[in-house]
Amino acid sequence: MGDDLLIIDGIVKTDTGVDDLASGYVAVSSGLIREVGMMSELPDPVRLAAAKVIDASGCLVMPGLVNGHNHCAMTLFRGLADDLPLMTWLQEHIFPSEASFVSPEMVYWCTRLAAAEMIMSGTTTVADGYFFEDQAARALKESGMRAVVAQGVIDFPAPGVPDPSANLHPPAELIKAWQGDRLISPAIFCHSAYTCSPETIISAKQLARDAGVLLFIHLAETAWEVEELQRRYGLRPMRHLQRLGILDEETVCVHSVWLVPDEIELLNDCGSGVITCPESNMKLASGAAPVARMLAAGTRVGLGTDGCASNNDLDLFGEMQSAALLHKLIGQDPTLLPAPQVVRMATAGGARVLGLQYETGELSPGKKADLILVDLQKPHLTPCYDLDSLLTYAASGSDVKSTIIDGVLVMEERRLLTIDLEETMTRVNSLADQVRKSF
Amino acid sequence: MGDDLLIIDGIVKTDTGVDDLASGYVAVSSGLIREVGMMSELPDPVRLAAAKVIDASGCLVMPGLVNGHNHCAMTLFRGLADDLPLMTWLQEHIFPSEASFVSPEMVYWCTRLAAAEMIMSGTTTVADGYFFEDQAARALKESGMRAVVAQGVIDFPAPGVPDPSANLHPPAELIKAWQGDRLISPAIFCHSAYTCSPETIISAKQLARDAGVLLFIHLAETAWEVEELQRRYGLRPMRHLQRLGILDEETVCVHSVWLVPDEIELLNDCGSGVITCPESNMKLASGAAPVARMLAAGTRVGLGTDGCASNNDLDLFGEMQSAALLHKLIGQDPTLLPAPQVVRMATAGGARVLGLQYETGELSPGKKADLILVDLQKPHLTPCYDLDSLLTYAASGSDVKSTIIDGVLVMEERRLLTIDLEETMTRVNSLADQVRKSF
Repeated sequence: MGDDLLIIDGIVKTDTGVDDLASGYVAVSSGLIREVGMMSELPDPVRLAAAKVIDASGCLVMPGLVNGHNHCAMTLFRGLADDLPLMTWLQEHIFPSEASFVSPEMVYWCTRLAAAEMIMSGTTTVADGYFFEDQAARALKESGMRAVVAQGVIDFPAPGVPDPSANLHPPAELIKAWQGDRLISPAIFCHSAYTCSPETIISAKQLARDAGVLLFIHLAETAWEVEELQRRYGLRPMRHLQRLGILDEETVCVHSVWLVPDEIELLNDCGSGVITCPESNMKLASGAAPVARMLAAGTRVGLGTDGCASNNDLDLFGEMQSAALLHKLIGQDPTLLPAPQVVRMATAGGARVLGLQYETGELSPGKKADLILVDLQKPHLTPCYDLDSLLTYAASGSDVKSTIIDGVLVMEERRLLTIDLEETMTRVNSLADQVRKSF
Repeated sequence: MGDDLLIIDGIVKTDTGVDDLASGYVAVSSGLIREVGMMSELPDPVRLAAAKVIDASGCLVMPGLVNGHNHCAMTLFRGLADDLPLMTWLQEHIFPSEASFVSPEMVYWCTRLAAAEMIMSGTTTVADGYFFEDQAARALKESGMRAVVAQGVIDFPAPGVPDPSANLHPPAELIKAWQGDRLISPAIFCHSAYTCSPETIISAKQLARDAGVLLFIHLAETAWEVEELQRRYGLRPMRHLQRLGILDEETVCVHSVWLVPDEIELLNDCGSGVITCPESNMKLASGAAPVARMLAAGTRVGLGTDGCASNNDLDLFGEMQSAALLHKLIGQDPTLLPAPQVVRMATAGGARVLGLQYETGELSPGKKADLILVDLQKPHLTPCYDLDSLLTYAASGSDVKSTIIDGVLVMEERRLLTIDLEETMTRVNSLADQVRKSF
């Protein structure tokens, strides 16, 4: 029995502490990376027995990227309302559009479009949070993506959840439906500590604990939020969560822009992870998260794009660059967030936050075969002195040539194999026509 | 006699104040945009007589981008030394590498690589500043790019200028050789007010005035520079230039990060233009220029990538996004640098700073035909509610399908027509091998 896939002649970016291989191979069997080695040591019988051989010459073979925060279905709202004050944007554009246009069908097709964009830009794992999340799970599963799929919980009537007192039913059902799936991990997403009561957050965490799934929450995204929580509860965001007893290793705090050193220490003591979304935080003028400080303190930090309404694309390569540049500027120190650290944050770092560190984020034997081929034969990637620098400061999602998830080739030479792109774009465009007419 | 090029069925982005055309054509004759109109009004004889018809269906047709600041030949040093303190970077890596490896041959091939990258990412005009600038002019001319080509002037021995007392000879020769060229405008680049004496700057400006060419200078890039100029001359950077008498409409101040309001006022009184390079300023932790304030004051501001050693790519789409995001964050206001303003800065705005506003930066009859086709049929550009938003926040250089400069098709369907890319990359890679060996 041969390997399912054999990737040959690539520059292989390993995470095992030894040097990257200038000319190496990766053997993939039953969804796993079976072996990594130098071409000169590839036995002929292995080569001959492989079901499919992928020529990676001129390409870097590296772990697929992990997008730690997305609202996939919001592709529908990409560029709908930009350059507006946060509250105008939310209350006059995003919330009304969501109330009118979020449906199971919308979540399915718009998540599918997001999956197409992510696969084409090298993301192999995504953490999603939205409503009608069963449809998001379906779309992501069909696309072949690895995903943490978190049903939104909020104390207002929401798409698919007209009665907020029943807002924990959908996540409970989602967990029942998807737990144990090979690609999809269900989870719960409490929108925030200002839109969810302490009781809601506590109950959601209880449900998450009972089921052994992650709890996500947008936390300390804006200065307004910090003030609001202090006004309501007399505590800063992280202390508020601590008092609710929800901070543990299975809680993920998204954004965490306005944390003070004392809260970072608390975060580390509790072991909760953070997803940072620099472009969204910049675009909405929310602030710059203390990422360099969190990383220095040992906090698990992953990178996310956030949804398309506030980014407006899902290209994690762009997000890597923005993270590296932003924190140098803000910290007034060009040595902060060096390229290797940023690449790690977008791969193994994100996997650790999502509890997927034993599955994805690294290119080493035994891990799931979540791999991308980055075509280095481009003018903007020439010359190559340092791979991490190229990936962080010069590469973009469009340089990804092929994408493999769970051992399955989902994009080959820029052609999507699991998604009918034309049909998906047509569907989303016709939903967008309805949005357009409503304004 | 028919048109040289007829672009049909595109979404045409006009700058004439009327709405963009959902389905339009652009007729190009003798290097100029002859006519812009709706497909429904395109006369059959015009269509039949065109030498070449370009199908732009699914594409946006827009003015080519203007990169207001580059050191093209520094593609050789892309990613050579990242994430380092500014002075270590400059003194231990960039200056020694330049001293060892900058030669006429290096400038020619590495500028050619830059031209390939720029054309492929939608830039049709570039302002370059380096040494052996005659070779840069040659490479850019051969690539078919429109360029302002400025010979570097500095009071130290420099590549090709071993004797600083003769540092105005090369620009004088460059001007003689290239003035009046259809594509190339020669100019002078005084490195900075801390590496050029008042006498050098004054003489350079005299030469520029006599020849009717632009004078560029890196100004107020770092806080250190401001302190240094105050220490030496008792004046802030802009006041220092004013005292030297060099501020006029033909002087371009690059970076202008550390300007105070009083200096912005002075800038406007004198009519000098500014090129801002947000990614370079972020990467080197130099600071954030007061771009929103300058634009509000009416300063002419264009966008530049800076050289590859401090960016590390030449994609102006990425630079547009970084500019829009950065200034929202820094100004704590998401309405700052809205997408239309950013797109203007990267097109007509840059052209105005370079004195090319009557030639390029706008899609209207009579202007030079410097045009790009952006392929909108991509998942990350779907749906499309607002073209400027898509261009600023979601598009990247790789979405450019075809590039036309001065009425000549230089890239068609991602294939370069004026540059042998493989040969160019091979040449630069072999120069990079030498750089690699020296460390």
